[in-house]
This record gives sequence, C-alpha cells and structure tokens, in this order.
Amino acid sequence: MAVVVQKFGGTSVADPDRMRTVADHVARCRRRGDQVVLVISAMGKETDDLLRMAEQVSNNRPGREMDMLITAGERKACALMCMALADADVPARSFTGSQAGFLTDTNHRNAKILEITPDRVIEALAEGIVPVVAGSQGVSTDRDVTFLGRGGSDTTAVALAHTLNADLCELYTDVSGVFSTDPRVVSAATKMQSITFDELLEMTATGCPKPAMRSVEVAHNYQVPLHIRSAFTWEPGTLVVQEEPGMEQPIIRAVTHDLSESKITVSDVEDRPGVSARLFRHLADGGINVDMIVQNVSDQGCTDISFTVPTEDLSAATEIMGGPELADLGFKGISTDEAVGRVSIIGAGMKSNPGVAATMFETLADNGINIGMISTSAIRVSCVIEADRAEEAVAALHTAFGLDSH
Amino acid sequence: MAVVVQKFGGTSVADPDRMRTVADHVARCRRRGDQVVLVISAMGKETDDLLRMAEQVSNNRPGREMDMLITAGERKACALMCMALADADVPARSFTGSQAGFLTDTNHRNAKILEITPDRVIEALAEGIVPVVAGSQGVSTDRDVTFLGRGGSDTTAVALAHTLNADLCELYTDVSGVFSTDPRVVSAATKMQSITFDELLEMTATGCPKPAMRSVEVAHNYQVPLHIRSAFTWEPGTLVVQEEPGMEQPIIRAVTHDLSESKITVSDVEDRPGVSARLFRHLADGGINVDMIVQNVSDQGCTDISFTVPTEDLSAATEIMGGPELADLGFKGISTDEAVGRVSIIGAGMKSNPGVAATMFETLADNGINIGMISTSAIRVSCVIEADRAEEAVAALHTAFGLDSH
Repeated sequence: MAVVVQKFGGTSVADPDRMRTVADHVARCRRRGDQVVLVISAMGKETDDLLRMAEQVSNNRPGREMDMLITAGERKACALMCMALADADVPARSFTGSQAGFLTDTNHRNAKILEITPDRVIEALAEGIVPVVAGSQGVSTDRDVTFLGRGGSDTTAVALAHTLNADLCELYTDVSGVFSTDPRVVSAATKMQSITFDELLEMTATGCPKPAMRSVEVAHNYQVPLHIRSAFTWEPGTLVVQEEPGMEQPIIRAVTHDLSESKITVSDVEDRPGVSARLFRHLADGGINVDMIVQNVSDQGCTDISFTVPTEDLSAATEIMGGPELADLGFKGISTDEAVGRVSIIGAGMKSNPGVAATMFETLADNGINIGMISTSAIRVSCVIEADRAEEAVAALHTAFGLDSH
Repeated sequence: MAVVVQKFGGTSVADPDRMRTVADHVARCRRRGDQVVLVISAMGKETDDLLRMAEQVSNNRPGREMDMLITAGERKACALMCMALADADVPARSFTGSQAGFLTDTNHRNAKILEITPDRVIEALAEGIVPVVAGSQGVSTDRDVTFLGRGGSDTTAVALAHTLNADLCELYTDVSGVFSTDPRVVSAATKMQSITFDELLEMTATGCPKPAMRSVEVAHNYQVPLHIRSAFTWEPGTLVVQEEPGMEQPIIRAVTHDLSESKITVSDVEDRPGVSARLFRHLADGGINVDMIVQNVSDQGCTDISFTVPTEDLSAATEIMGGPELADLGFKGISTDEAVGRVSIIGAGMKSNPGVAATMFETLADNGINIGMISTSAIRVSCVIEADRAEEAVAALHTAFGLDSH
C-alpha cells in the first residue's frame, strides 16, 4: 500500500464543484489501495482577496498579523475539503500547519520550515483517515502562526512527503505537467514525461512558474519523487526523477524565460580585492536578492560590474548603492535597465556536449538579438537580452535545439 | 490604571472603516490610561457566509471541520484589527482562542470553556501591547479547534475579564444598551442605565437577544462588571451590577417576548410518581431543551402536562415522545402548537411587591388576550399566549407597569 501525498492548488479547489471533484479523485485513489495525504491551498484567489482587504484596513501590516490573516484561507479550504470527502464516504481530518507539526523560524510572510513532527498526521493515517493538511503554514519557535510564502503549499507537500517517507508526492495544478518551454509563447512546446531534479531546479530558477522553486529545492535535497500533473484533465503529467536522461533524451530539455528582473551596471569600479564583496554584502544585508553577476575584464585598474535584481527591488538596490557606506568605493556611475529579459536553455545532457552555448549564441545572433550578459551553470546557459525580443528568442532556441513537437 | 476587556461584535467590525473607527476608540481609551484587551467577532455576516459555503460543498459537515472553518472568521478579523491598531499607533497582537489559552470540551459547534490560561495575553499586557483575542473559540482537550457557538464572543469576553480580574467588561454592539422592552415593538421603550445580573439573566432567557445568555450566566456567576453599549454612537449604555435596584427604581424593569418556541401538550397522563421524570429524561437525552413545564391538577388519576421547546426541536421532540421507550406511559394524546408566544415581566423589585402577577393577568385580560400557560421565578412572570397577540401584549404590559418613556 503506497503512501501518496497529493497537493491541490488554489484553482483545483476554487469552488464547491472543484472540491467535490477532488474528493471523488481521492476516493478513487483509496479504492485502488493508496494511502492518501492531502495538502490544500487557499481557494482560488482568496489569498489575493485577503491581501487586498489588509491594504484597505491599514497602511501598517505587521508580518505576524498578515500571517494570521492569510493562513485563514488554507484552513477554510481544508475544513471544506474534509466535508466534501465526508460526502464521498472518505473519512478525513483537517490539520493546520501547527497541528501537522510544521515548526518554522520567525520570519513572517516567508517562514522557513525548521522541523516537522507529524504525529497527528501519522495517527490519522494509521486509523484509515485521510489527513488534510493546510498548505504553506506552520507555527514559529515563538508560538506564532507563520506563512511559508506564496507557492508554499508545494513546499509543505514535498517536505511532508519526505518526513512521512511517502512513495510519491503529486503536485496537482492547472497545467498538465512541465513543458519544454512556455506553451503560451511557443505552441510547439512539448510536455515532458520526466525530468531530473537538477533540470527542474534550473527551470524554476529561470522563469518556469510551477512548481514553486523552494519545493523543488526540498525535493532535490531529499530526493522526493515528484509528479507534476493536472487536477482538471487528470492525465499523467511529468515525473521528476533522480537519474540522468538516457540516450534517447535531447541534450537540451527546456527553454525558459523571465521578464521580472532588471539590470544594474556599475561602471569604473576600482579593481582591487574586496570591492565586489562589500558591494554585494551591502545589497544582501538590504534584503536584495541578486541573481546574475557579470564582471568585465579590468581596464587600467577599473572594471564594470553588471548584475540583475528583481525589478521590484530595483529602487531599493540603487538607494543602497548610492548610500554613504559605499561612497568610498568611488563608482563613476550607476545605470539601470528595466527592459531586460533572460532566456535560458537547460539540460543535464549539455555537460558532456561541448558547443551547446555556442549554438545558443549563434541562434540569437542569426535573429539579430544582442546579448547583454551571459551566465552559465553545469546544465544551464542564460543570456540577458532586450525584454521585447525575449519571446522571439525562446521560439528560435526551442526550434534550434530540436524541441518543437512534431 | 484599569484593565478593560472590550468586545466588538460583527457589525462593529464589518468593514475597513468600522475597523479603523474601533482602533481610534481603543487609542483614545489608552490615552485615558486604560489597559485594553480586545475580543473580536467575525466581520459582519462572515459566519453566515461560511455556513452557506459549507452547505454548498457537502451534505456531511462534521462538527470538527465546521469549527475549523467557522473560526477562520474571527482569526481574520483579529489580524485585520491589529493592522488597523498599528495604523493608529497602538501596538497590538492577535491571539487565536488556543493562543489565548481557552481550553474547551470536545463538544464541537457549541463547546464549553473548561479553563483559561491566558499567559500570552497577560504577557502582552505587561509589554504595553493590546491583546486582540479571537472570540468564540478555543482548543479542545483533544487538541482540536472548537467553536463556542453563535454569540460566543460575549462569553469569551466575560470569561476572559473574570480570569484577568479586569475592572470592567464592555460589550460593544449595534444597540445602545438594554431596553425596558424591544424598541422595535414599543417605541416608548426606555434604555436602562443599570440592571442587575439576575434581571438581565431572566431577560436574555425570555427573549432579549443581546447579550448572549451564556455570557450573562458567566458574568452572573463570577460577578463580572458588564457595560453593554454601542459601537456606533459610543454613548454610555447599560451597566450590569450586582446590587438591587434602589427605591427610585420601578418594580418591573422590563417586558420581553419570545416567538421561537412551540407548545406540546400531553393529555391524560397517568398521575403516578416517575412519569414526568421518565418523559423529560428521554427528551433531555435526545438533546431537547425543554423550557416551561406546567402540569395541571390531577383529575381521576390522570393529568395533562404542557411544556415548551424550541420550534426547531419540535419534530424531534414529538418523535421521541411517540417512541417505544415511552409507550407504556399510555398517553391519550399529544398535541402541538407552534403559534405560541411568551411574554414575560422582569424585575428584582417584584419579590417584595405582591400583586405584580395579578396586574399582569388583569392587563392581558383587559386586552382580551387568553393565557395558555404561566410560569414564574422570584423576579419574573411569564405567560404563554397566542403568537399573533404577543406584540400587543408587550405594549400593554409596558404601559401598565409604567415603563413608557415620557
């Protein structure tokens, strides 16, 4: 009898009809002999509604109270799901993050899981009862309610699957799996039957919106078998596995893009040890999440440093860089560009295939697309280009690497 | 520095504007030197909305899951209230029933408080922070979330005021106090400056809708000073006090009425010991809350017993009475009447004033209103009459006992 953790996202449980559909599905899985543990997100757009209500009430929204507010959404959804399951003759019991044993740090709105002691979940399973766990929440070491952040239900599901030593973690969503690129941009995008943890991690880090990157990190760290699939068509989705793709797999698996970042260039920085360290330490201390960093070769003792930050952090970043703490570094200038996009190619096969990066650059050049920055990992090459050429670049790369469906 | 527990009901916090108004009020109380503890109900009609949603999702609505669902309403309201307070420069901290230390029994949807250990509330007060406690909820001895029932926020406030040894418990609502009768029925109804616990208890037991009767019972048992007042006009309301009304107080303080009950008459019951006991034991075991009971004089070894039950329990009650366990009692017949109303006069002063009941009966007779049942307590006389004469009876009694405003 397999233990399966099934996570259902907001659109999957958006209304009473959807709740009943999910309950039927769970009943069917149990008839097949699976032991099911559910993780449920807030219904539909409820989290957005709660955030909007908070904005209407107050300009001061302490993190602790925001978490108390937002987590109400998942609790409601869990309770309603248990009722729907009762109608489908499936005994079920809801658990808040705290009741399910999720202990987190005190970093409200974006808490990290420290430890899971799911005694009550295990107890329910042993009694033949389906545990229905509220996603994206826990209780902090200060005994306060915490929220794991947007998309945190995926993390809840994966972490719980690991702790329960589950056979499989299924993330049900409104897409039918992981695609070779965004199907809205390239209609020839293909759904992958399987993908490695490393590849999926690079994809989510470079613009693939689902599943949430944090959950993939956890799955990757603990090798939790994942299945990303649709709660609407119920067709098989994409399995995330540990082994490398075999011979029959293409070298490049996916093309991703991301328009959410901006580029900052600092020119004429003195090229001596410690300068970059101080710059990025100050940005990190200011909570700025720097992504790509490129430093040009030194020219007469000076260099240019370019990096990308989320566009929403752009003004905070430039403020920090213009602040008194960094004045002695003697930048000649800071320029910013919001109109950038990043396109990435990802594939574990590129490790043993030289020339992949060159093919990417050629493809972009053939299409007259200029490359602003380049960064690479063992299984990824990313280029920063003009934002309004990004979709065109994705389509060209998808074709060039033979990913178009036939 | 006085410790004041202030409870705000659903209409008082129905929208962002109302939340800010309440926050301003709390800020003002603190400037005057009070230490404020807030108890908050769900916003507006949210509890009704949640109940309706549950009905849409499922026909099976286990109590445990209903409580998990419904309590989300108060949590949201508490979190939002803390944000509104932050905007008014009042440091605040929300607490769920569990966090505030409300331990209850496991009777879901209508749990009873067993014990309160409000360590975190006391801690917040000591730090100069306003504790904002979610009304009508707790955690059961089984570690599940429990709901204290509709109107339970009043109970939360009164019980917490007792435990904290607060100087005053203020119940803010959408009426400006306790009236001599329902102002919708008698426009000459007068607001009382003060009333005794005993009188208020009799009033809430006989149809006065606010505050919730359970909270008055707790206030009565522990002599918690209450102030029932308006969150809209902020004018002084009605103080609930221990001492008897003085000389200047009228003998009768209030006239109440209640149309929510039905009358059951069992005719020709054998008049021997134990018959009534068995009848009412079976009804109690079936969860039927019997209110008034009147037994007529015995006539040739047989008697009639009439009693009232909530109309919603009428069919369950008649079913129990027609069941096999009671067959040997040999009732000749069971008749029911849903079209009954109860009018009551209440006043601690009637204890030392003979003739009060007679005046009531004369007043009803003068108006051609027939009395079906009578019951009395030390400070109350109630008559069951035809439902459609109830409002007329209330008005006549209000005038007869000199309660009309001048």
